[in-house]
This record gives sequence, C-alpha cells and structure tokens, in this order.
Amino acid sequence: MSITANNPDRKSWLHVDKNSDFPIQNIPFGVFLTRDDIITIGTRIGDTAIDLGALHQLGYFEGIPLTDDIFLQDTLNDFIADGRKTWRLVRNRIADIFDNENGTLKNNIQHKETVLFRLDEIEMQLPVQIGDYTDFYSSIEHATNVGTLFRDPENALLPNWLHIPVGYHGRSSSIIPSGIDVHRPQGQTLPAGANEPVFGPSKLVDFELEMAFITTDANDLGEPIPIDEAEEYIFGLVLFNDWSARDIQKWEYVPLGPFLAKSFASSISPWIVTLDALEPYRIQGPKPLKKQLEYLQQKGKKGFDINLEVALQPEKAKETVISKSNFKYMYWSMAQQLAHHTINGCPINSGDMMGSGTISGPTPDSYGSMLELSWRGEKPLTMNDGTERKFINDNDTVIMRGYCEKDGTRIGFGEVKTKLLPVFNAKKNK
Amino acid sequence: MSITANNPDRKSWLHVDKNSDFPIQNIPFGVFLTRDDIITIGTRIGDTAIDLGALHQLGYFEGIPLTDDIFLQDTLNDFIADGRKTWRLVRNRIADIFDNENGTLKNNIQHKETVLFRLDEIEMQLPVQIGDYTDFYSSIEHATNVGTLFRDPENALLPNWLHIPVGYHGRSSSIIPSGIDVHRPQGQTLPAGANEPVFGPSKLVDFELEMAFITTDANDLGEPIPIDEAEEYIFGLVLFNDWSARDIQKWEYVPLGPFLAKSFASSISPWIVTLDALEPYRIQGPKPLKKQLEYLQQKGKKGFDINLEVALQPEKAKETVISKSNFKYMYWSMAQQLAHHTINGCPINSGDMMGSGTISGPTPDSYGSMLELSWRGEKPLTMNDGTERKFINDNDTVIMRGYCEKDGTRIGFGEVKTKLLPVFNAKKNK
Repeated sequence: MSITANNPDRKSWLHVDKNSDFPIQNIPFGVFLTRDDIITIGTRIGDTAIDLGALHQLGYFEGIPLTDDIFLQDTLNDFIADGRKTWRLVRNRIADIFDNENGTLKNNIQHKETVLFRLDEIEMQLPVQIGDYTDFYSSIEHATNVGTLFRDPENALLPNWLHIPVGYHGRSSSIIPSGIDVHRPQGQTLPAGANEPVFGPSKLVDFELEMAFITTDANDLGEPIPIDEAEEYIFGLVLFNDWSARDIQKWEYVPLGPFLAKSFASSISPWIVTLDALEPYRIQGPKPLKKQLEYLQQKGKKGFDINLEVALQPEKAKETVISKSNFKYMYWSMAQQLAHHTINGCPINSGDMMGSGTISGPTPDSYGSMLELSWRGEKPLTMNDGTERKFINDNDTVIMRGYCEKDGTRIGFGEVKTKLLPVFNAKKNK
Repeated sequence: MSITANNPDRKSWLHVDKNSDFPIQNIPFGVFLTRDDIITIGTRIGDTAIDLGALHQLGYFEGIPLTDDIFLQDTLNDFIADGRKTWRLVRNRIADIFDNENGTLKNNIQHKETVLFRLDEIEMQLPVQIGDYTDFYSSIEHATNVGTLFRDPENALLPNWLHIPVGYHGRSSSIIPSGIDVHRPQGQTLPAGANEPVFGPSKLVDFELEMAFITTDANDLGEPIPIDEAEEYIFGLVLFNDWSARDIQKWEYVPLGPFLAKSFASSISPWIVTLDALEPYRIQGPKPLKKQLEYLQQKGKKGFDINLEVALQPEKAKETVISKSNFKYMYWSMAQQLAHHTINGCPINSGDMMGSGTISGPTPDSYGSMLELSWRGEKPLTMNDGTERKFINDNDTVIMRGYCEKDGTRIGFGEVKTKLLPVFNAKKNK
C-alpha cells in the first residue's frame, strides 16, 4: 500500500504556516485533554489539533478495520498494536479528509466544531504507556567524547563499541511529556579527592539530546527479530531529553551502569511522527568502521536526516541556541538496535521506547550535552543575557527541536521543553 | 489494625499438610486461569486454590471497601494500589472465612464448588503487570565473590558498594511465571584471547537465586520516600530466578551494565507472600561495616529469615539440591533499597518489582549462582545421576524454593521452576 499521505503536492484546507513542523504531509499522533476535559487520541495540522475519537464517531474512518473506541483512549498503545497497515490506512485517510480538494468536513461547520481545537484549548499528555524503555549509546562522536573525558583519550572507544549497539535498560516511570517541570535530583556524590561520599543536590545536572522510537508488538519470548523486518515494528519517533546528573552518575555507575543519575526524569515531545512520514528523508548513514556480525548487517538506507537543535532559556531571559546536531550522525541505526535488542529473545511490546543515546555531531557546536559542549566545565557557554553555563542552573528551561526538510516540505517534531526546578522540598511542597 | 491472619493458633477447615508452605497463616495472592478458562485473582490454603473473585461476588467481603471487579482482573495491580489497609482487611477476612471455627462457607456445598479448586484445575499466571523492574546487588558475599572472580581479590568490593545499595534497571517484558520454558539465548561473546567477537549460543547460562518485592503506588515525580515509610509501600515478595548469560555479560557490560545477558528471561514464583505474613520472621540483619548516609539509616529489624534452596534437575533424572542460602544475608534491606531508589525523585508504581540481587551466604554451599558454586567452572558440581555441571545444560530444570519457620508455623513461597530449552530455531518453531 502506498503512503499517499506523503504526497508533497497536497495542500490542506486548514491553515499551515510556511515554517510549520506540521503540514498535511506530517500527520503525527498524540494524546490530549480537550477543553471539555475529555482525553482523546489526536493529530495536528498546522496549529490545529484534530480529535480522532470524534472524527471516528462521526464515521470518517468508515471502511478501515478499527474498534469503536480505538481513539477514545488515554494512550496510543492499542492503536499502535493494530500494526503498520492500519497506521497507514488511517494516516492516508486523514490526509484525504483535510485535503483542500475534499469539501466533506471542510463544509460541515457542526462537525468541524466537534473535531477541531486550537492548541491553547488542549493539553498534551504522554502519548503511550511505556512498558519498557531502553537507552542506546549509538553516536560515535558522543561515545568518543565521553571516553576522552572520563577514561583514556588514546582508547576513547571501548573494545565492544564498534561491534555492539551498546544499550541499557532505563526507567519508564519517570518519562514525562514536554511541559512538565523537573526537580533537581539529590543523591550521593564523591567530592574530588574524598574517600567518603556526601549527600546533597546534584551540582552537574545535564541534558542529553536524543531521539527515541516507539515500537509495536513484535515478537514472543525467545524469538529474535531479523534485521530486515525490524523497521516493520517501529511506529514513530519523538524528541527525547535524557536528563542526567553527572556527579551522581560518576559515583554510582561502576559496575552496573547508570541508575539514579538518569531515573529522576526523561522528557519526550508529545507528537509521535510516524516512520512513514520520515520515509522521504532517508540517508545512507555512516559506513561501518569494522565488519559487523551478520545479524546486524543492514541493507539500504539506514539513517534519517533530521536537523536537531538545543536551546537553553534562563529564567526571565531569551533562549540561546547552544547546539545544532542531526540524527544522521547515528552510527548504529534503529533497525540495528532492534535486531540486537531481540537477538537473545527479549520480547518487544506495543509502547516500548528506545532512546538513541546522545546525538553529537563532529564539531564542538554540534555536541549533544553540556558535558561535551562545556568540555566538563572547562569552556563555559555564554547565554544571550550575558550569564555563563557549565551545566544547567535552577529555573533554566531546556528546549529541543527537530525537523526534516527537502524540496520545500518540512516534517517536524515540535519541541520538548522542560524547566529544571530547585531541589524538592517536602515541607514547601505539601 | 492488627494482623489477626497471622495468629499461629488458628487452624483451617481446609486440609493442610504438615510441611505445606501455605497454612492459613500465609494467605498469599496470585492470579490463575480456572477450569472454566476464567482469569481471577486468588489465594491458596494447603493444596486448595481459592477464587477471590467468586468469593467477593458471593458477598464474603461485605464491609470491606472494594470495587465489585477488584478480583476479577488478570493482574493484582489495582488491588495492590488499594494500599496496605485494604490488603490487611482482606487477608484477615480470608483467615476468618477459612477458620475451622467458622461454618459459613465450610457448610455451604454450592459455594464451595464455585470457590475452591484443586491445584491441577488451575494454571498460575504472572501475578502483576510489572511496569518497571529494578535489580539490586545487595548481598555482600555475592558482590565479593564476583569481584574476586572478575576483578581483583584484594579489592573485591568496589568503593561505592558499602555506601550505595547498588542497582540497575532491568527488562520487564521478559519476566515470566514459574513453569514457562526458556530458550538458551544467542548473542555476541569474545572468546578468550580473541580480538573480535563471535556470534552463537551462550555457553555459560546461569541462574541467580534472588527474591523480589512488589510495590504499590508510592510517590510522585520528584518526591523521595523516607526510609521509615518505605515498607508501607511493599506489598509482598516472590522467589526470583534472574537468568544470566555470563559470556554475553562479560563482553557487553562495560560501561553501561548488563543488558542482553539478563533480558532473555527472569522467572518468578506465582504466589506473592505479603510482607504482613512475613512479619513474625524479622531479624536484625547484618551490621553496617561503614557509617551509612542518613537517608539510608534504618531503625529496628530490617531483615527477614527466609530459608532458600536451589535444585537442579537434569532431563530424566532426579533433582540435586545445589545450594542452601537465606534472605537474611542481605546487607542492604528492602527499605534501604526503596529509599535509595527514590532519593532522586523517581516514581514507584503499583506492580513495580525490585530484585534483591543474587543471595549468597558465607559458605561455598550457600552461593546463589553456578558462577560462584562452580567457581567459574573450576569446581564442577556432581548431580545425582553422576553427570557434572559447571553451568546450566540444555533441558536442565532449575528449581528454587523458600520458606520461613518458627514455633511450628511455616510460611513458604512454593517454587519457581524453569526449564532451559535449546536455542530457538525459527524454522522448527514455526
């Protein structure tokens, strides 16, 4: 079945700004609370949010095999479990409904009142219930920078890195949508030169610029996913800020990996952009530097050209863009990550999320974390208001954005925006 | 409210063998499929399974604030979310219903036919939907053994171990109940002396003898749980076999921790024994060897005296008991684990599971893994059938059991029993 929703010549009867991330060729999926306090699954064209639950009740998805309540849910998990064929039918149908040539909904004022919302009338929610979340470490520039900073510049990449899409299990319960504030975490750290740890607020709170993909039900326990089939199980992508406390991480992470340094919060953009919508932006991706084992050998274009940027906004000041990177720098692809994740028979379910790892580019202005941008604090960044940053200060807001652009069509992710609050105070917060 | 269900003098009108793990003082919770293919929440006394959904419909829980369908569910998550007061009311009521002095159900043949099942009429399921699973590393003997085997006998414990209940995030999707077979995982390993990894079946499949506790909804994002309140959020415990592939682990785990070496399967016993039922078996626990930070300082008896054993059963042979350990060896308690886990504000939800880490005792016959028992293969174990084991062979079954005993009352966990099948074969399994 062709992806007619991607037709670049199509225009919508809904207004779309020239630089919008959400033209009619995007059609992402999300979950929102409406002005009537109803939770529904929806999509977005330009600055208009569209209630898919209402659209379905009005019969606009007739002929597509969907249960009656598939969009009247507080997560996308069930819809994602319906599989790629259904996602594609729905996305193509939405493109038809909002096509400038189609007057059915366009000319039905009553239906439009039920279905369409201004962005200020809705509140975006976490789009999926995330069963398991895995974070990879797949940018060679990031792995090299971290290895140089923390271990040995001569052997910055560990011996397994070019053979394995290195990853680890993360915490699902602290994944939050854009707009939810986060408290600076407390924990144990080992001061330089000390033998005993101290307790207190992390002094080195950092972001990590990542993207994450959301999967559908893929395999049973014991059954690996062949690499050629892996993308069939990827629903779509979001922007991902993997908040990190570097001082907590340094003290805790040997030998079992990052734990509390990461699990205090991880933020995602609320609209899931489908892999189908990103199809026109495929690129070859980096050439392997070492021969990869057969189960990781992927044919065709394995990467995606997605421009990424990070901005930092001090309280009461304008934001400063501090990094420009790109998803195309990923050494290991999403299909390779998924094939590796399941080679031992680990089951993948609808709503699982896999983070890319920090996406650093080759130049210092394309690094994906403060750790790298300020080179562990040696090179502070100057903000628009004249203040300097080595890591993230209380009441700073971190904003990540991403978009693809080609031949005049732009498919974007919107943003993930999170404010860092001071340490939680039990008395004050009661 | 007192825990009248724990009254050691109470007898049930249901038959209970002298050495049963499930006297009327236990009253664990589980989920099972009945002979009529209905999923329900239940408990067990002796060898009789009790359908709590049916019992509730018949009015036996009158006066306890429970929704009508609280036991007619395929997981315990909602019941657990009701909180400790409700668990205690329900457990006390069950003890009353089945008390030898109470004739109400005992004398109602029709009700008994609806509510009671023989064990061979039911099929135990995973008792909770596990949102997040964390595995700790809290046995000092195990951490010392592993440090000695893999790193430096002189500095076997890493510098953070006596300060932090070290833990890491694990994979929820591959947690299975007792009785589900597991395939030997495949993956990358680095042969001794080689520079490049090879692909194939793991040659060093191992068990880890652990226990795990299940939590209820505890805190919001950002809000730590004080150590004195931590046990309020623990519903109960299960036996836990944290399957491990040592050769895969060795090659993958630096720097981000164990991943595919663990995520192919983890098995739990199906009956959750409540913390209330274990109350009589509290012990002081090991004395801290170093002063602990204030948020980890716990008053009172922090451990539990739970006898544990592991048996290995080759195909077509009798089992051999290969280890006898005890939960009392845990250096870090469950309350300390939970206080540490949330000190950064990480939210804990109903149905989350926390593994203890391998529970090794001080003597070689009390070690909790083949790695330690066979001392990395140097000292093979001899089975009853004369065969030897360094690690687990295809078609071996690993069985773990656990129970408390004091003053003639025995509270047990039953068993977690898992067979290791050969590597998954896509053609054969289709």
